[in-house]
Amino acid sequence: MNYLKKVVIVFYCLFSGGLYAQQHPSIMLTKANVDAVREGVELYPLLKTSYQEIKQQADVAIKQAINVPVPADGGGGVTHEQHKKNYNTILNCGVAYQLSKDIKYANYVKDMLLAYAAQYQKWPLHPKRKENHQGGKIFWQALNDCVWQVYTIQGYDMVYDAIAPKDRATIENKLFMPILKFLTVDCYTTFNKIHNHGTWNVAAVGMTGYVLNKPEYVEMALKGSKKDGKAGYLAQIDQLFSPDGYYMEGPYYQRYALLPFVLFAKAINNYQPNLKIFEYRDQLLAKAINTSLQLTYTDGTFFPINDAIKDKTYETIELVYGLNLAYADIKPEAFLLDVAQKQKKVIVSDAGLKVAKAIAEGQSQPFKYLSQWIKDGGNGNEGGLGILRSGSNQDQQCLLLKAASQGMGHGHFDRLNILYYDNNGEVFFDYGASRFINIETKRGGHYLPENNSWAKQTVAHNTLVVDQQSHYHAKVSEAEKYNPDLIHFSAEPNMQIVSASENHAYPGVKMLRTAALIKIEGAHKDLLVDIFRVEANKEHQYDLPFWYKGQLVDASFKVEAYKNNLQALGNNYGYQHIWLNAQNSLKDQSGFVSILNNKRFYTTHFTSDKLLNVKMLSIGANDPEMSLTEGKAFMLSSQANASEQTFVSITETHGNIDPVNETVESAYSQLRNLKLISSDQKKAIISFSYKNVAYRYEIDYQAKQNFARLIQENKF
Amino acid sequence: MNYLKKVVIVFYCLFSGGLYAQQHPSIMLTKANVDAVREGVELYPLLKTSYQEIKQQADVAIKQAINVPVPADGGGGVTHEQHKKNYNTILNCGVAYQLSKDIKYANYVKDMLLAYAAQYQKWPLHPKRKENHQGGKIFWQALNDCVWQVYTIQGYDMVYDAIAPKDRATIENKLFMPILKFLTVDCYTTFNKIHNHGTWNVAAVGMTGYVLNKPEYVEMALKGSKKDGKAGYLAQIDQLFSPDGYYMEGPYYQRYALLPFVLFAKAINNYQPNLKIFEYRDQLLAKAINTSLQLTYTDGTFFPINDAIKDKTYETIELVYGLNLAYADIKPEAFLLDVAQKQKKVIVSDAGLKVAKAIAEGQSQPFKYLSQWIKDGGNGNEGGLGILRSGSNQDQQCLLLKAASQGMGHGHFDRLNILYYDNNGEVFFDYGASRFINIETKRGGHYLPENNSWAKQTVAHNTLVVDQQSHYHAKVSEAEKYNPDLIHFSAEPNMQIVSASENHAYPGVKMLRTAALIKIEGAHKDLLVDIFRVEANKEHQYDLPFWYKGQLVDASFKVEAYKNNLQALGNNYGYQHIWLNAQNSLKDQSGFVSILNNKRFYTTHFTSDKLLNVKMLSIGANDPEMSLTEGKAFMLSSQANASEQTFVSITETHGNIDPVNETVESAYSQLRNLKLISSDQKKAIISFSYKNVAYRYEIDYQAKQNFARLIQENKF
Repeated sequence: MNYLKKVVIVFYCLFSGGLYAQQHPSIMLTKANVDAVREGVELYPLLKTSYQEIKQQADVAIKQAINVPVPADGGGGVTHEQHKKNYNTILNCGVAYQLSKDIKYANYVKDMLLAYAAQYQKWPLHPKRKENHQGGKIFWQALNDCVWQVYTIQGYDMVYDAIAPKDRATIENKLFMPILKFLTVDCYTTFNKIHNHGTWNVAAVGMTGYVLNKPEYVEMALKGSKKDGKAGYLAQIDQLFSPDGYYMEGPYYQRYALLPFVLFAKAINNYQPNLKIFEYRDQLLAKAINTSLQLTYTDGTFFPINDAIKDKTYETIELVYGLNLAYADIKPEAFLLDVAQKQKKVIVSDAGLKVAKAIAEGQSQPFKYLSQWIKDGGNGNEGGLGILRSGSNQDQQCLLLKAASQGMGHGHFDRLNILYYDNNGEVFFDYGASRFINIETKRGGHYLPENNSWAKQTVAHNTLVVDQQSHYHAKVSEAEKYNPDLIHFSAEPNMQIVSASENHAYPGVKMLRTAALIKIEGAHKDLLVDIFRVEANKEHQYDLPFWYKGQLVDASFKVEAYKNNLQALGNNYGYQHIWLNAQNSLKDQSGFVSILNNKRFYTTHFTSDKLLNVKMLSIGANDPEMSLTEGKAFMLSSQANASEQTFVSITETHGNIDPVNETVESAYSQLRNLKLISSDQKKAIISFSYKNVAYRYEIDYQAKQNFARLIQENKF
Repeated sequence: MNYLKKVVIVFYCLFSGGLYAQQHPSIMLTKANVDAVREGVELYPLLKTSYQEIKQQADVAIKQAINVPVPADGGGGVTHEQHKKNYNTILNCGVAYQLSKDIKYANYVKDMLLAYAAQYQKWPLHPKRKENHQGGKIFWQALNDCVWQVYTIQGYDMVYDAIAPKDRATIENKLFMPILKFLTVDCYTTFNKIHNHGTWNVAAVGMTGYVLNKPEYVEMALKGSKKDGKAGYLAQIDQLFSPDGYYMEGPYYQRYALLPFVLFAKAINNYQPNLKIFEYRDQLLAKAINTSLQLTYTDGTFFPINDAIKDKTYETIELVYGLNLAYADIKPEAFLLDVAQKQKKVIVSDAGLKVAKAIAEGQSQPFKYLSQWIKDGGNGNEGGLGILRSGSNQDQQCLLLKAASQGMGHGHFDRLNILYYDNNGEVFFDYGASRFINIETKRGGHYLPENNSWAKQTVAHNTLVVDQQSHYHAKVSEAEKYNPDLIHFSAEPNMQIVSASENHAYPGVKMLRTAALIKIEGAHKDLLVDIFRVEANKEHQYDLPFWYKGQLVDASFKVEAYKNNLQALGNNYGYQHIWLNAQNSLKDQSGFVSILNNKRFYTTHFTSDKLLNVKMLSIGANDPEMSLTEGKAFMLSSQANASEQTFVSITETHGNIDPVNETVESAYSQLRNLKLISSDQKKAIISFSYKNVAYRYEIDYQAKQNFARLIQENKF
């Protein structure tokens, strides 16, 4: 069944019934389940602590005078934070009222909403709004107004029955209806955008439409202002996610977008179960939730590709909602409970009850991290992410190859970038975004200028830079036109490989990267084998940086760092933000560097068919406000221009130090004699030895079967 | 009773009895207690897991062929690590034999010791020994040979009864007796040194003397080669520790020195209980153990003053021994059990049994961190360390003022240095030592050249530098002549203060620093108030750096960091290792900088009686081998030379960010209008306001009572 046909059916079902059966509450917590949830709070520890936290926050909140300030400040400022606090209070008090039946919580919500209702219509567009960015009324951007409404309408739904009809009328007519108008009319463009801002907007409008019994708004939320299905929630599900549930902007925004998607879905499912929204597009929402979890490393952090605030983990509230609904309403996978335990909370709701109960009954199993190719693009044909994992959740090697589409304005110019994780942390890292979110003193908490000049640029990533320029000259419009292509993905336990190409980032230049995790006899950890081939119609200069965590402890060459007069590496495309600490033009074809990171050693052996200059780099030049954070790289740089070149590296993960007991083990890599035997469009062949055994590793780019082979040659 | 008299009594008791009653084992684990410990392993979880770990290591070890290589490698090298592994195996197998009674463990020890006995006398001095450093035979330095013997003799003691007399004779005559000769004759100087190397040596010799029943060696170990009490163990107890149990080299070496002290004490106590060694010098050993624990922050790390490997915690085996003996043989304080739980192990021994049993019985109480002045010097009159603490063990503010003596060759030139900790981590930090211990590729794992050129230098610390030179021109011999003096210490909960002076670090320059943690109405955390007064007989230039962790997020001035052509700050005394990132000559007398560190804000307001230049610094210049680790500072620098100047700072600890929930609280400091009203030899007066209340803070340097006062002036 194609999507269009589905959409037609959906619309038929949707508007054949007129007004909805009204019962409150009816979103995350439903009237029929309130008693069960109340009992569950006594029985199931995770539900109990989750409720205690909410009730405690509600109790603290209602002791304070209601504070609805005239909107004035940008992100992180006083009025901004107060309005954020208010929507949390409204929701917390709503839950506390439902479970405790204590009217004081409902009254506090009523009074606060009346305070908003008394002012809202007088507020102009926010004074701190930014040009070319839809301003809100409560917050500097309309996006936050939508978030406010998504939270608030749930709280209102919970206390609805406890508010006198007259007050409800005031709140609805002077606050919610004007908000609906603002979000659909004033913010018309955003409302109809296929974008996460649009999702928050349609969710706010749709959920409000259900609670206020305004089918007109629900219909617009589902199929756009024109009700033609070209915009709205269903169009967003169709277009923003790949068939694998990947959201094109990347994991950080996937997480953010997820909350309105699943909350609105839950509301739809409750009010109009016949729509079977969770089944829509082959269970797309379930895939989106699951893929969000698969886009994390074992420490819970999301892969920080594209604009991303690092330190963000699956403990974030969006994933708590997502996981609870996935388990309770879609498919009760026992491994989801493992993550729920790490989240340390559930939503106090019908879904949270099921999760907490299952955990209390001991049903939890370790989360199943997968090696997988996650397709990007509405039709799944716009590249994707290759994720290779090896080892237990306690000590997992993880390699990510980014071969996804640009991801709109938040995308980085980092085609074929790799990230490498091990030992519960980053080894080869992505800088993420340059932003101190919500910290007013750092440019109002917005993205910093360095986000464009540094974080998005190619050289800030672990991928190839040609002629010291960024992919697509760092132009979104150009980059949006093309995507990398998957060449091969396989996840055999002994040899996991992902290979992808990118042929448009530079005119006339073809790039092909094949990264693998390979088990080898006598090694405790898989070898990370990386072959990056570039081929051009004329000669260029090539740079391949590896941004690493840790401390340099060894190298095959004498590192002679500049002692004074440190210079920036270049003038543009991010190079202006890099200090050149050392450069070593190697006379040998091969070499290595050893890094000590979080008490473990990582030795990267490298070679190429042309001579290399190894540059040692650190972040920080041309940063007058000292906004950039620390970072170091070694960069393999071609000594002379060439029309084609292949960069080979094998990173061995080995040994450890124990600073408490002052011991060290396996400080030296056992890999030797790395050589590039041949590299052309069809094949790459390298050789190396490990613990006195010689190996040959061959890639046949055109093979479907036996794409790569590791051949043991002899012992010597 | 003075020490001399005590020593006489000790010696009388000691050698009136001739040979010792011989029973094996008789050190940590004693024959009389073996059955009880064996039972305890079944009953008490911590003893059980501790034994399991040992037995598992023993089981792994005995599966391998005995490997006693000819000594060849330096620290971290193959033979070095093998001999370290061997002494651990000997001890582990000894314990496993005693508890399991399985003869295979005893046989393995026997075979290994016979293997050593067959070779030891053939080995020359170690080929990797260093000039001016006592080389060993098994290791590059004799110190490690002593450690080897301290472990090995315990293992031998455990399997003694299981080895045939003939083999015992071989082991004793061809291994231990030659070792005793080596340690007492070849290493005569070290054996008689009042120094931690001497302690390991006398402990090795003395413990071996007991086990082999050679009172001659015990006597030398206790009172030196000449048996006159001027050297040896008792003289070391008298001279190396202050009356408060502080070891002059600092916490890192205190920990290291502690193990031979307490192990030998335990042996003495078992063999000659009438010596009452634990009572010696007013229970000095108990104080040393306790002070070692008090020299840690709540994350378990030792204060890294002087040469110190950071990341070292009280989980280190030395402190496990120390704590077990302190609890079992000296005083069973319930709060010690808290640390034992964090150590996650006990020594499988008489003492460990008591600790594990008490924990299993639920007797543990939170460790009592104290605010205290810890005296340095054999007589307690050579300065000391001031430690101020505020808050629970879960979130403690801790300020350390270092006003101790030089601490010999491992001492740093950092008189009146302060360290500030909060939120379970460092805020104003000490670099510690420049060393990659045991990592051969980094100069053989020894101290790096940068340890002298950077880590020891004054500017690497948070204290005053005069004319860009280090205290005492970084000459140990000069620095050893003088110590700082305590001016005042008080630990009233609302106002904790430590004040100390240093008048010899620079000719004609007097330095006086007074640091305080002060509770103030409306602040969640104490204010750190720091007043540094310098007074000289001629004009000088002054620099006061604050090496901080975290990221600069705000300042009272526009930070305009150099964009390119980064220069070293100076040529000598560590300045050559600092990059000057920015300098701002302030026109105002006052200013502030705000740091975001580990999700919390730290705003340092500063002022002075002269204009300041605020310099932003980072570590890394003149570091050709890239051995230095990251670090950043803001430095208060006098704009013009002056004969006297007072630097005032108040650091407010405030607010937090939550990157998971993307919220921020109290991002702005509430402190305003910091002013220095007056500063002279007698008094310092500053004023400031906090949340609209004006305060005056006065120090009367000559007062015994009311040394400092905080006066609330008015609300406005």
